[in-house]
Amino acid sequence: MSNLNIQITLSEKKKDKLPTDQLVFGTTFTDHMFIADYIEGKGWHNHRVVPYAPITLEPSATIFHYGQTIFEGMKAYLSEDGVVRLFRPDQNMKRMNHSADRLSMPQIDENHALEALVELIKVDKEWIPKDPGTSLYIRPFMIATEPHLGVSASKSYTYMIIMSPVGSYYEEGIHPVKILVESEYVRAVAGGTGNAKTAGNYASSLKAQEVADREGYSQVLWLDGIERKYIEEVGSMNVFFKIDGEVVTPALNGSILDGITRKSIIDLLKHWSVPVVERRVSIDEIREAHRTGKLDEAFGTGTAAVISPIGEFRYQGELFYVNNGETGELSAKLYDALTGIQKGTQEDPFGWVVELNKK
Amino acid sequence: MSNLNIQITLSEKKKDKLPTDQLVFGTTFTDHMFIADYIEGKGWHNHRVVPYAPITLEPSATIFHYGQTIFEGMKAYLSEDGVVRLFRPDQNMKRMNHSADRLSMPQIDENHALEALVELIKVDKEWIPKDPGTSLYIRPFMIATEPHLGVSASKSYTYMIIMSPVGSYYEEGIHPVKILVESEYVRAVAGGTGNAKTAGNYASSLKAQEVADREGYSQVLWLDGIERKYIEEVGSMNVFFKIDGEVVTPALNGSILDGITRKSIIDLLKHWSVPVVERRVSIDEIREAHRTGKLDEAFGTGTAAVISPIGEFRYQGELFYVNNGETGELSAKLYDALTGIQKGTQEDPFGWVVELNKK
Ligand SMILES: Cc1ncc(COP(=O)(O)O)c(C=O)c1O
Ligand SMILES: Cc1ncc(COP(=O)(O)O)c(C=O)c1O
Repeated sequence: MSNLNIQITLSEKKKDKLPTDQLVFGTTFTDHMFIADYIEGKGWHNHRVVPYAPITLEPSATIFHYGQTIFEGMKAYLSEDGVVRLFRPDQNMKRMNHSADRLSMPQIDENHALEALVELIKVDKEWIPKDPGTSLYIRPFMIATEPHLGVSASKSYTYMIIMSPVGSYYEEGIHPVKILVESEYVRAVAGGTGNAKTAGNYASSLKAQEVADREGYSQVLWLDGIERKYIEEVGSMNVFFKIDGEVVTPALNGSILDGITRKSIIDLLKHWSVPVVERRVSIDEIREAHRTGKLDEAFGTGTAAVISPIGEFRYQGELFYVNNGETGELSAKLYDALTGIQKGTQEDPFGWVVELNKK
Repeated sequence: MSNLNIQITLSEKKKDKLPTDQLVFGTTFTDHMFIADYIEGKGWHNHRVVPYAPITLEPSATIFHYGQTIFEGMKAYLSEDGVVRLFRPDQNMKRMNHSADRLSMPQIDENHALEALVELIKVDKEWIPKDPGTSLYIRPFMIATEPHLGVSASKSYTYMIIMSPVGSYYEEGIHPVKILVESEYVRAVAGGTGNAKTAGNYASSLKAQEVADREGYSQVLWLDGIERKYIEEVGSMNVFFKIDGEVVTPALNGSILDGITRKSIIDLLKHWSVPVVERRVSIDEIREAHRTGKLDEAFGTGTAAVISPIGEFRYQGELFYVNNGETGELSAKLYDALTGIQKGTQEDPFGWVVELNKK
């Protein structure tokens, strides 16, 4: 199936590794990176693993002016017996192609992309931390490189994978976060780029995130850009509510990201026969559920934190505490189940995990 | 007022210059560029004019992942007597700061930015073409450079100016373009980044532009993202309609760009006592005006083409021809007046033009 010819150039000097308790998310990178180039008419070529190093671009490269760039985020886990596990990497590659289509960027070969990733992980395997809660964060991304100031799709691109060892998201075990419901700024609307993983969506979110930071909230909850009342998603997580025994999450409406953790949580809940529905959810419904004591739990889902219980929402000055600000039972159970599958300490009934160098 | 210390390093070898009739917009660049660096706590520093060359960034630089980047577009004109003219450059610097604020990027000193631009133009003055309709296109831009994968504002930035000699926009004189009214994709909504000049807005527009290209239309006309019926702007132009003797343009509503050509056209029309209003304009109103023979003229406004008469709109399969597909009288008059002021062949009653190295 695969005929990818990856050129490997090893770095001459290895970098020192930080102790896992000193790792700051996304600041330390491994010794190598993967690169492939694309030129219209020629396609993808020059697939290579090279020492991690700066990249050089023309000042007129499309990425700087017209923003054609997409990315993915995923993790590799190392277990005691030396097995490396990836969680649904096929889904990331598929979503990368969905994003590429929206941004008029070239498709990647999903099998080749996985092969390239496996090769890079092999080269930098010693960088995967082993301590509980730690992992290797993987960032595949594609940028437009044509040196041309014109609003049209670039004719050349670079695809890269860089990797960063990350410490435990929860230093003292899983604990709830505080979320600010945003009512001034809008992240995306249907017809826009909200369901693609592209830089512009994040750039536009910073202004609201700054307010949240200042007021002691960890992330923003976005409302829809049209009626400003339906719940979309959190900064970098999808969101779930347990209301009166039923789990509810906003339906994929074209403006939110089709999260891989989100879809896995839905499958897990169905597997457990916990009622779960995808539909429109308004902030008024959440306020009402809170008022009548029916808002049992709330949590965000995403690759970084896996499950992030939500203990408090603030919406236009009003505070809604969830489960007395404590981690709910279902949130904790989902966290344990999903991280257990990811790390290989629990059975994987769905075939989600890809195991590398298994004996 | 100014104390900017600009270090100048001249290039050792000058590039060959293309004849103006061979210039393709945004592909040829002058011999030098301007750069300044910003670091949180230290501010802007190391202002320099250096030989035009590629730039080097960490693969984890914020610009590649979270898209903090803004830009401006302006032109310098050279007249027979050696005077270089800039058109309302203060407005570009002001808009750059507006964009910077929306994207959580640092403010620039508008006077310093202008001083830097003048210095760069001095160094590369021989690159400004002189032929009718030609000019030097100027692209100031700012990118986020911090090597950190985290959704938060970068702590370091680079501000640059690059310049490109451009040929006449209209090879055979001003002529009308065909515009496709977009009804599937959305460019921006209020609360988003539509009124900032940032890369993400353009990245998200490419998909619709591709359809327009394929079907023989030069640009897309965006409708509002909420009701999908109010007119916003064209791909890289604001838009005006002359309906029954009155000129109408969509009001600044938070999701369209506050175009410098747009505001100059409004001032010119007022100066001429031509009735002009900024308000909501629906596509149905345009259809109706067309049906009743009241759609006298339509044109786009922007730095690249100055005035671009519109001869045809297509909206959901329906065609609206404007002025029999020919350039309207007012469009032509506005084009002549504005380009005359820009090139110094006509009086500038508004004080819009900044003249450099005037004897
Ligand atoms: C905007 C946004 N929504 C949701 C998610 C969650 O997606 P996933 O579960 O695939 O990590 C992320 C993070 O990846 C995100 O950036
Ligand atoms: C989206 C958009 N609207 C409008 C304009 C026109 O603005 P200006 O007249 O300042 O060039 C531009 C181009 O600069 C643009 O990119």
